Order: sequence, then C-alpha cells, then structure tokens
Amino acid sequence: MRFVTVEKEGNIFYGLVDETLTEILDLAKASHAMGMATPLPSTLLQCLELGETFVENVLEIKEWINKQDETSSYVYKISDITLLAPIPRPLKNILCVGKNYKDHVLEMGNEADIPEHIMIFTKAPTTVIGHDTSIPLHAGVTSQLDYEGELAIVIGKKGTGISEEEAMDYVFGYSILNDITARDLQTKHKQFFLGKSLDGSCPMGPVLVHKSAFTNPQNVLLSTRINGELRQQASTELMIFSLPEIISTLSKGMTLEPGDIIATGTPAGVGKGFNPPKFLKRGDVIEISIDGIGSLRNIVE
Amino acid sequence: MRFVTVEKEGNIFYGLVDETLTEILDLAKASHAMGMATPLPSTLLQCLELGETFVENVLEIKEWINKQDETSSYVYKISDITLLAPIPRPLKNILCVGKNYKDHVLEMGNEADIPEHIMIFTKAPTTVIGHDTSIPLHAGVTSQLDYEGELAIVIGKKGTGISEEEAMDYVFGYSILNDITARDLQTKHKQFFLGKSLDGSCPMGPVLVHKSAFTNPQNVLLSTRINGELRQQASTELMIFSLPEIISTLSKGMTLEPGDIIATGTPAGVGKGFNPPKFLKRGDVIEISIDGIGSLRNIVE
Repeated sequence: MRFVTVEKEGNIFYGLVDETLTEILDLAKASHAMGMATPLPSTLLQCLELGETFVENVLEIKEWINKQDETSSYVYKISDITLLAPIPRPLKNILCVGKNYKDHVLEMGNEADIPEHIMIFTKAPTTVIGHDTSIPLHAGVTSQLDYEGELAIVIGKKGTGISEEEAMDYVFGYSILNDITARDLQTKHKQFFLGKSLDGSCPMGPVLVHKSAFTNPQNVLLSTRINGELRQQASTELMIFSLPEIISTLSKGMTLEPGDIIATGTPAGVGKGFNPPKFLKRGDVIEISIDGIGSLRNIVE
Repeated sequence: MRFVTVEKEGNIFYGLVDETLTEILDLAKASHAMGMATPLPSTLLQCLELGETFVENVLEIKEWINKQDETSSYVYKISDITLLAPIPRPLKNILCVGKNYKDHVLEMGNEADIPEHIMIFTKAPTTVIGHDTSIPLHAGVTSQLDYEGELAIVIGKKGTGISEEEAMDYVFGYSILNDITARDLQTKHKQFFLGKSLDGSCPMGPVLVHKSAFTNPQNVLLSTRINGELRQQASTELMIFSLPEIISTLSKGMTLEPGDIIATGTPAGVGKGFNPPKFLKRGDVIEISIDGIGSLRNIVE
C-alpha cells in the first residue's frame, strides 16, 4: 500500500497509488460512496490515528472498488494532480537523527565526532514541501545550502518506553526526506535547529509506503543525484543507530504519536563533504531515490 | 487582558480572568449568547489566528457582559475549575533560546561559552502541562532533572524576515514557562532536544497576558523558588539577546505563526549551578514568578 496526499483544483485529499504513480484512488470519497459505517477522515494524518482500522478499511475499499464497473468518480490520473508531502503539515517538528552514517561523520569532521549516543535535533513543520515543489535558495540568509537524502519513518501508534524488540510495531510506513541544511547557520548557531528550519527545507514524499510493502528498511539502497550526478549512495544497513534503536531511544520518557516523522540520518556525499564544497545553487535538480519507495525530486528556486 | 485555558467537567474552553485569578469569563460562550456576527472559535490558539479581530471581539464581549444583570452562565469561579496551559497543545515544538543570561552561562561553564549568536533548540509539544499539574520525575530515564524559570513570548501574527524594529508587533502576549531539563540526557546526546523533551517537562501558564497589560517585558523581575527557597532571581533586562533580536533572528527564512511559543532563556540559579547540584526530587514544589504575569507552580511527582 502506497499513500499520497494531493491537491486537485484547490481540494486537498489523500489516496492510494499504484507503483508507477499513474493513478490515485480517493480513499475518503470511496469510503463514503460504498457506505462504510464510519467513513475515512479527511486527512492522511487523521487516518494514521485510526491505527490498524485504517489498513483494514483500505483493504475493504480496494475490494469494493474491484467490483465496480465505473470508478472515474474515485480514481484519477496523477498527471492532472499536484503531489504534496504525504503529511503536508505535521503536528510537531520533524525528529531528525544527526551523524548516523560513519562516512558522513568523517566527511564533516573526524573519528572523534562519531557519536556514542543518538543525537536528535528537529525541523519546524513549516519546512515541509512536496515532490516537484521548488526549494527556496534563501540567498539573503545563507550561502551554504546543502542537501541530505534520508529514509524517513512515519509512526503509526502512540507509545512511550518502547523496547527495541517491539519498536517496529510502532511504525506505519516509510518515505523519502531531504534534510536541506544551511551549513553556515548550522555552525554559527551551534544547536542545529536554525540551520535546519528554513521554509521549504524539508521536501518529503512523494509516497508514504506502508510497512507491509517495504519489509527490509534496514537494508535498502539510498541514492542522491544532483543534476544527474551521483553524490550519495549507501545502504541503510550502514546506519550507526538502527531503526529500532532510534525509536526506542526517542520514546524513553517522550511519547511518540501517530504521524510523527523521524528522519534517520544521511550517508556520505553531502555538498559540504567535497573539497571545494558543492553547495546548492539556483536551478539545481535534486533527486533522492530509495529502492522500494521511489524518487523525490525538487528544484532549487 | 489575561487569558487562560481551563477544563470544567470534561469540557475544555478558554476565557478572560481577573488579576486575582478568581473568576473566568467563558469568551466563546458569551460571544454566542450576545449574538456576535462571527462567534469566537473553540480554542485560544484559533483565537490568536484571528489577529487584531480577537482583541476587538474581547472588548465587545466585556462591554456586553457589563450590561447584563445575570452572568452566571458565562462567568465561573476558578476554584471549581482545572487550569491548563494557555495553549495546551502547540502546533509545533516550543522554540527555546539557550544560554541567554550571562550568569547562567557562567554557572554552567565559563566565559568561552557565552554565545556570540543566538542558540535555538526545541521541546516537543507533548511536554506542555498546566499550572498545579505534577511534573513526572522520569526516574528510570534521568537522575538529573532540573528547573529553568523563563519568560515565554506567544506570537500573534504570521511573519518572516521580521526586523528588530517591528518585532514586537508580532507578539500577542507573554506567559511563564518552566524549561524542565534532564541534564544527563542534555549532555549525553549533545543536541539538547532529548534532554528537553520528556513528557510533562514544559509547565506553562497559568495565564497568557496580552501585551497591552505587560508593557515592559524586557525589564521585569523573574524569580524561581524551590520549596520556598529562592534559587533564581533576575531582571529580563539581563538577557544577552533581547526579545526583538530573538524574534528577528528566528524569522530569518523561517515563518513564525500565531501560537508559536518562544522560551527566552533562564537566569542563573538552576539546580546544576550549585555545588553539589540541587536536582529535583519527588515532592519538590517549584514556583516561578514574573512581576506583572503571576506565578506558575508545579510539584514533582
């Protein structure tokens, strides 16, 4: 199951998409049309709050749709539609793991910087933009805008004090996230927040893949290309702190909630890692691909 | 004008309170009863999104109430009511300024730690609790829970690229905030987020004072008492970065929104600043007072 949030003629809704991103099934509209006892809510975020019921409802809707002769009221061509981030406005800041791939730590510093403990910072919800949306260059604010391709976890169940063993039960699914960073601000302000929170600095999507369709998240290839040039390529098995460790550590005394987004860190190959650095410039096309999820593409404005 | 959010018999609503916190006027209910063309929305956060209209509406409601013989349907005794934080669930993480009073920087380190540039970290929205609510000790997670009394700004108008000159126009009002911190986690995880985001680690309130009733925020006395013992006492004029500087810096490339909460830093006298340190323990009563706002009191559970 692959979910998207979209805008069509001013209406924002979410739906189920095929692997080629050709068609979208408007789940809420279909749930009403089929007479579902409790129709689906109006946002994907609200669906996540339904827990397992949401997945069951989606399966019922798919079954119903397969029996219909005429589906044009619920199924649309993606080509007519604007893709937004799967969760266009998260209910809290995006949780981000810093320095989670050894080679990235080394390109930014040295062996002494390899973290002993998980390092977490956040990005404001106002950073989130969708696939194919322009990333603002913020030329008056930063001269060192950089990309960071990352695997994102989306939480599906409320929990605190989650053990590593049960951590993956709290995941709803996965997406692709670009942790755009103003390196000069990141350094100048010490704590990372300001350098990580410029408007539009968190492209995400296009799809949110349910965990049932992405079964080996700790061993998939992530690649980032700038104008077609391969800059980052690594398996997620190279993470210093694994997905269960991240979820378990975050939840120690802090309640995780459905819809929480966790960016799991970036591998080597960011712009600052090159000598001389290759920071983003106007017109650069950034494409981040994760095997089994797809590609997130954005242009620097 | 002093606002609170409260719970009464399972209903959550907001209202206007007098300076002695004796009575509350249910603003939304009164706006309906008086037949206001567009009655007030159901949360204080939504009211902030109305901008200046909200303040005008409140003045109209006060005028109407003064003419009524019988007000018991809209005015209640606070003694029957549970006070919540003015904004019980913010729409993003709380924005916090680190190291903003020189004497606090020195008690935690040395001259070299005095920041040249504003340092911002965040606290998860799940940290927010109200006046008189228990602060969890999180004994299994931290053994160094500490208090930080702070003046909080609440933003009232959306803006980006705000100059210092116009910064104060973007403020709706002020409150008191306790930036409860797990010092061991703060140190262990380097970036401050995890040590600052334990559930219940952001007591706030009880009131949100409109800026018209708190006209000199950069020169008021803040005091923190633990079990009656004075631990922190300083004027807000001692901030390294002033309120306009904080708002202007935050808004450089990052849109500030109505309801955003900014904790402006804590003066000297936190538990870790003592030798030996005086961390919080079960039963400790923390009371933070700011002249012109009131007192925020919480007990460690």
